[in-house]
Amino acid sequence: MKIYGDVISGNCLKVKWTADALGLPYTWVQTDVVKGETRTPAYLAKFPQGQVPAVEFDDGRTLAQSNGIVRYLARGSRLLPDDGFAQAKVDEWLFWEQYSHEPYVAVCRFHMKYLGKSKDEREAWRVERGEKALDFIEQQLAGRDFLAGPALTIADIAVVAYTRMADEGGFDLAERPGIRKWITRCEESLRIQ
Amino acid sequence: MKIYGDVISGNCLKVKWTADALGLPYTWVQTDVVKGETRTPAYLAKFPQGQVPAVEFDDGRTLAQSNGIVRYLARGSRLLPDDGFAQAKVDEWLFWEQYSHEPYVAVCRFHMKYLGKSKDEREAWRVERGEKALDFIEQQLAGRDFLAGPALTIADIAVVAYTRMADEGGFDLAERPGIRKWITRCEESLRIQ
Repeated sequence: MKIYGDVISGNCLKVKWTADALGLPYTWVQTDVVKGETRTPAYLAKFPQGQVPAVEFDDGRTLAQSNGIVRYLARGSRLLPDDGFAQAKVDEWLFWEQYSHEPYVAVCRFHMKYLGKSKDEREAWRVERGEKALDFIEQQLAGRDFLAGPALTIADIAVVAYTRMADEGGFDLAERPGIRKWITRCEESLRIQ
Repeated sequence: MKIYGDVISGNCLKVKWTADALGLPYTWVQTDVVKGETRTPAYLAKFPQGQVPAVEFDDGRTLAQSNGIVRYLARGSRLLPDDGFAQAKVDEWLFWEQYSHEPYVAVCRFHMKYLGKSKDEREAWRVERGEKALDFIEQQLAGRDFLAGPALTIADIAVVAYTRMADEGGFDLAERPGIRKWITRCEESLRIQ
């Protein structure tokens, strides 16, 4: 398969990490959002959402949405439990991440790292919701090693992607020791640094 | 099961419609977000995300996130195909709805209908993205009756929930005949008005 993505994007790294962890062969097609490479007619003909990451399988089928892609790739593997309810608890995290975490933690990072805003220039409402998202993760990690079961799943992959970059968005993990240890556990499981 | 939700919320209606369509018995626990009923200690002890909709099954297990709940309830039914890739294409819509549609179309509706803003007082960036989301649906419906296959699936349920209320957020469906016909098809399939 071909993975269209940008390695500066946590959403894209989710797909890379999942494929790497499962030993799935792929070609990485570096696609620069900031340069508009997801808005060309050729890209939109293939992926009408105009977003990365997106995957094109060898038979021409395509799939978009980071958490949907990793869910599809992880079927039947150690990264997604077989049980229906256990999968639903993973899905709970996947949807929470896209609605209650990414628009705040990742977007603040984008504003600071790529649009040149200072920490104080971040939007207050986004900062507040980002802090709340990080507090929620810290709370949920109390007494457990991973988010959705005894071992790493795609719930961890989805949530850790931008959480481990939270400092680049002006968020402080110093007072969140549960998150810091969990990030290390995820990095060790995924063999990333 | 008990469904905690508010009938004014499209996210909550997704769960109601899915349960009704599949004939699943439930008790509806009316839960008023605006009055803070999702932020009480008792509610947070059960549903730490502090959101509706949320479901409590008879054995005490709980599940949150509208699209995760409907995905779980629809397993093995006509509302979710069995094939893994077909499910992934449904997931593509579920994640797209929560990231690229709800924060714009539903939030503009909330601002106008519940916070008393006028159409002109809506946030311009939200309006722009909401219009783009509606254009995308209209484009994707060209030549097809439903979003993710020949019949209604939870992809339609998730996306139609706030699309059919788009006018309450100041969005105009008059020039989007594909959406208008699809809303009618969804309403007929779900036997709602």
